[in-house]
Amino acid sequence: MVANNENSLGTTHEFAKKTAQHWPRFQHPLMTFEEQGVANELPLTYVPFKASISKRGLSLSEVVCQSYSVGWFGEMNVKKQRRLVKVLCNYLDGTVNLGGDLDTMNITDYEDRITVPIPKAKGTDYRSSHHKAPFGSKAGRTMIVQPDEPWFDITKFRDVMYKGYISEVFVPYMDPTQEWYYKTFFDAGEFGLGLCAVPLQPKTDCAANAVFMDGYYAGQDGKLIKMSYVICVFERYAGDIMWRHTEIGIPRETIREVRPEINLVVRMVISTVGNYDCIIDWEFKQSGSIKVGVGLLEMKGVKYTHTDQIKEDVYGTLIADNTIAEYHDHFLNFHLDLDVDQENNSFVKSKLQTTKVMEDNSPRKKVAKHESSDGYRFKGMETFWEPAELLVVNPNKRTKMGNHIRYRLIPSFPVALLLSHDDYPQIRGAFTNYQVWVTPYNKSENHGDDTLAIWGHRNREIENKDIVLWYTVDFHHVPCQEDFPVMPTLNGGFELRPSNFFENNPVLKTRSPKNMEWPTCTNKTS
Amino acid sequence: MVANNENSLGTTHEFAKKTAQHWPRFQHPLMTFEEQGVANELPLTYVPFKASISKRGLSLSEVVCQSYSVGWFGEMNVKKQRRLVKVLCNYLDGTVNLGGDLDTMNITDYEDRITVPIPKAKGTDYRSSHHKAPFGSKAGRTMIVQPDEPWFDITKFRDVMYKGYISEVFVPYMDPTQEWYYKTFFDAGEFGLGLCAVPLQPKTDCAANAVFMDGYYAGQDGKLIKMSYVICVFERYAGDIMWRHTEIGIPRETIREVRPEINLVVRMVISTVGNYDCIIDWEFKQSGSIKVGVGLLEMKGVKYTHTDQIKEDVYGTLIADNTIAEYHDHFLNFHLDLDVDQENNSFVKSKLQTTKVMEDNSPRKKVAKHESSDGYRFKGMETFWEPAELLVVNPNKRTKMGNHIRYRLIPSFPVALLLSHDDYPQIRGAFTNYQVWVTPYNKSENHGDDTLAIWGHRNREIENKDIVLWYTVDFHHVPCQEDFPVMPTLNGGFELRPSNFFENNPVLKTRSPKNMEWPTCTNKTS
Repeated sequence: MVANNENSLGTTHEFAKKTAQHWPRFQHPLMTFEEQGVANELPLTYVPFKASISKRGLSLSEVVCQSYSVGWFGEMNVKKQRRLVKVLCNYLDGTVNLGGDLDTMNITDYEDRITVPIPKAKGTDYRSSHHKAPFGSKAGRTMIVQPDEPWFDITKFRDVMYKGYISEVFVPYMDPTQEWYYKTFFDAGEFGLGLCAVPLQPKTDCAANAVFMDGYYAGQDGKLIKMSYVICVFERYAGDIMWRHTEIGIPRETIREVRPEINLVVRMVISTVGNYDCIIDWEFKQSGSIKVGVGLLEMKGVKYTHTDQIKEDVYGTLIADNTIAEYHDHFLNFHLDLDVDQENNSFVKSKLQTTKVMEDNSPRKKVAKHESSDGYRFKGMETFWEPAELLVVNPNKRTKMGNHIRYRLIPSFPVALLLSHDDYPQIRGAFTNYQVWVTPYNKSENHGDDTLAIWGHRNREIENKDIVLWYTVDFHHVPCQEDFPVMPTLNGGFELRPSNFFENNPVLKTRSPKNMEWPTCTNKTS
Repeated sequence: MVANNENSLGTTHEFAKKTAQHWPRFQHPLMTFEEQGVANELPLTYVPFKASISKRGLSLSEVVCQSYSVGWFGEMNVKKQRRLVKVLCNYLDGTVNLGGDLDTMNITDYEDRITVPIPKAKGTDYRSSHHKAPFGSKAGRTMIVQPDEPWFDITKFRDVMYKGYISEVFVPYMDPTQEWYYKTFFDAGEFGLGLCAVPLQPKTDCAANAVFMDGYYAGQDGKLIKMSYVICVFERYAGDIMWRHTEIGIPRETIREVRPEINLVVRMVISTVGNYDCIIDWEFKQSGSIKVGVGLLEMKGVKYTHTDQIKEDVYGTLIADNTIAEYHDHFLNFHLDLDVDQENNSFVKSKLQTTKVMEDNSPRKKVAKHESSDGYRFKGMETFWEPAELLVVNPNKRTKMGNHIRYRLIPSFPVALLLSHDDYPQIRGAFTNYQVWVTPYNKSENHGDDTLAIWGHRNREIENKDIVLWYTVDFHHVPCQEDFPVMPTLNGGFELRPSNFFENNPVLKTRSPKNMEWPTCTNKTS
C-alpha cells in the first residue's frame, strides 16, 4: 500500500484547502437562457453605451451582446456574492465591456476602453449560401446503409457503469488583458451543458441511419422546456475491423477470419457561449468497450495584418487580417461511477516492472519483466509517466481462470497544465491538476466551493468501495490559420475496455451477415 | 538554440555507440518464405526429433514447425555470423527447440527440454464454421454506400511528404525462459513487412466500396512474385463531422453549418510469424491531415488451470486452461520524410510557456501564458511531458499573414520502456528510446548494425535541411482473457495536421450533396 503524498503538488493542495476555508460559501445557480437574453439587451438601452455606438458612426441594430461569467479572482467581499455577468458586445469598432447583475438586472459597470480595426468580414462567413467560387470538392452522398432488419440483441446484462457524465468543462483562455482575463469558463457549472445542447441535423450531424431523441430542461419558471433532436443514436460502421486473424503456421492452408466493427454511438453536440461546438460521443462496442470521443474557435479583433507587425505579447495566432485566435485549453472532466459487476470496486495501478533475471537458465541475462499487481489505495495522484495499467477491479469476483474481474482505462494523450496552481482560475479548476482521481461515491459532496483537489485530500477508504473514477480529457488549443473561420474537428477521448471481465473474447462468435452482396440502390437525386 | 544532451540516456547512447564499434559488421538478408518453408520441414526428417514425437505417442503428421529469428544476445563470435534460425514445433505435448542454418539448411542444435500439458483445443477455435451455440449477436449488412458518381477531385498539388513508411517493427516478449527469451522480433528487418502482407477479404477487411491493389516481392530466385489484394483504398464515412458551427450569439437567428467527414483510407494488413495481425491505415483527410492508424495474440502452454496455482513468475496472464498470453510490447517506427512545401524544413518544438504578468493592467494578477517559438536544433530527445507542440516548419515560406508554413505532429499516448537500455534486444531496438527523432535525410545511412540512437549522436545540422521525422507508435500488451483466442482490435496511431499550411480552413467550401435522400436499396438476400 502506497500513499502518494510526496508530490510536488502537495503544497498547492494545502493552499487550495486553506483558501477554501476562508471563502464565503457562495453558490450561484447557473445563468438561464432567459436571464442571459434580458442581460444581453441591457446595453442597447443604456445611454452611455448608445453614445459610444453613435460616436463610432455605427448602427445600434448591428450590435450583438453576449453574457459571460465573470470568473473568480480572489474577491472575498460582498459584491462578489451578487450574480454578476460581463456583457460583451460584438461587431463593433472596438470592444466594450459592461457588467450586469442578473438578480436586479442592472448595469453595474461600464467601460469603453480601446479601439481596434474591425476584422474584415470577407472570407469569414462559413455559410455555404454565402460562398463564392472557387469551391472545394463537391460531396456525393456517402451513407451507412443497413438493408436488413435491425440485428442488435441485448440478451445479457452485467453492471459496468452506474452513471457516466461530464461533470465540468473548464476552458481557460490565456490572455491577461482587460477584455479577456475573465474568460475562464466553467461551461457546465456556469452555463449548463444540457442548456448548450443544439438540435442535430439529420444526415449530416449523425449518420443517415440515426434515430433522434429530445431533451428537456427546467426554464426560468421551473416548467419543462423541450429541446428537439438533441441526442442521436446510430450504428457506426467505418470500414473497420473488430477482430481478424490469419493463421500462417499451417502449411498449405490459410485460415482467415474477419469480423467488421459496428458500434453503437450516442451523440450530443453542445455549442457554448465561448463560441465553440463540442461533439460528445459515447460509443458502445460489441466487445464491451465504452469509448468516449470529444471534438472545437474564438476570434479577437487586433490592429495587425501581418505577423511582422507584432511586437508585444498577443497570446494567440494571427489567423486572418485583424483576427487573432486566442490560446486556450479545454478540460472535460468525466464522472464515471463504475460498478464493475457490483458496487464495490477497487482502483488498481498495475505497474509493469522490470526485474533482473538472476537464474542462470535464461540467455537473456540482464533483464526481463513481469507484472506486479500492487493494488493500493489511490489518493488521486497519477502521472501516467511510468509503465502501468489503470484498472477498476472487483476484488470480490473472479473469472473461472481466477483473474479478478476488471475494466481498464485507456487514457488519451495527456496535456501538461499551463496555469500555475496558485492562479485563481486554476484554484477553481483544480480538478484538472491530475487526469485521474478516484473518490468514494458521495452524492452530497459538492458544496460549490471546493473541488476534487480538496476531496482527494480527505484520505477516505476507496478500496472495495462504491468508487467514482474522474477522468479529464484535455486539449491545448494553439489556433492556426486552418482554424479560421471554423476549424476542422480535433479529436480526443478515452476508452474503458474490459480486461478479464469476460471469460474470453466476447465477440468471437458474432456471426457474419448471411450474404455480403452490395445492395442495389436507386439514386433518388431529382 | 538548445542542444539537449543533458539527458539521462546519454550514457546509454555512449554504451550503444561503443558496443557498435566492436561489432563485426554482419548484415543478413531477411528470411525468405522459401527458406522458412524448407527450414520448417527439417525437423520432420531429423531422427532425434522423430524419436521425441514417438516417445510422446503423437503423430508426426500433426506437428507444425515455424522459423523464428534468433535475436542477438551479445554474441561476437563467428558462429553468430551464420544465418541461424530457431525452429519451434507446435501442437505437441511439450516444447521442442531446434536450431538451423539457412544457408546450409542443416540442423545445428537440438533440445527437447520440457513437458507441459497440451492446451485444450476446446474454445480456442475462432473459425465461425467450428462455432456452436450460443452464438453472439448476428450481424446484418452494414455498408458504406455512395450512390452518386465518384466525387473526389484533386485539383491542386503541394508537397507535404516525400515518402512515409514503416521502417521497423520491434516486438520484444518479456519472458526470459529458454523457449521465449529470443522472441524479440524485428518484423521488418528479419521477416519483411511486405512479405507478411495478407490478401484482403472484400467487404469485411475493407468497406464494400473499396478497390484493391496487388503487390509484388522478389522471390528466392529474384523473380517477381505477385500478391493479390494486399492493399485496399476506400472512402471512409463513419457518421462523423468534418466541421460544424452553431452561432448562438445572434438573437432570433440560429446559424448552423455541418459538413460530414469523408476520408480516403489506404489499408494494408500484415500477419507476422509472431502470430499477430496488424492493420495499417494511412488515412488522408480532406482537411490535409494525414492520420496513421495501427491494430494484435500469442499463446503458450503451461501447467496451470487457475491463477491460484501460479507461484513462480510467468510473464503473462492465464487466459485459458494451460494457456498463458505473454506480456510483450509493439513498437512501430515510421520513417516520415516530410517536405513541407519543399525539401528544406526545420523541426521546431514550440513550447507553451507560462509567464508572470507584471503589468498592472490585468486583473489576472499572477499568471498568464504565451507561446514562445524556441525553434532549436533537435537531436532526437523528446519526452512530451511538458506543454509543447512538435512542428515541421518550412522556414523559407510564409502564409500571407506571415506565419511560417508548418505541419504539426499529434502523437499517440506514449508508452514507457520496459527493457533496460543495456539489455541486448534494446541495444538493437534503441530507436525506441524516444518516440521522436529527427535526422537529415541520408539514403546510405543504414549499415545494418546501428540505429537511430547512433545516428542521432552525429550532431548534424538539421535546421533548414531535408529532414526525416521518425515516429514510433508503441503499445504495451498485457493480455487479458478477452484477448483469447483472438483479441478485439486495439487501436493506436498519430496525426500529421496542417498548422498554418493553408491560408484558412481548406474544407470550408466543400459543398454538401445536392440531396441527402436515403437511397432506395433492394435487399439481395437470397
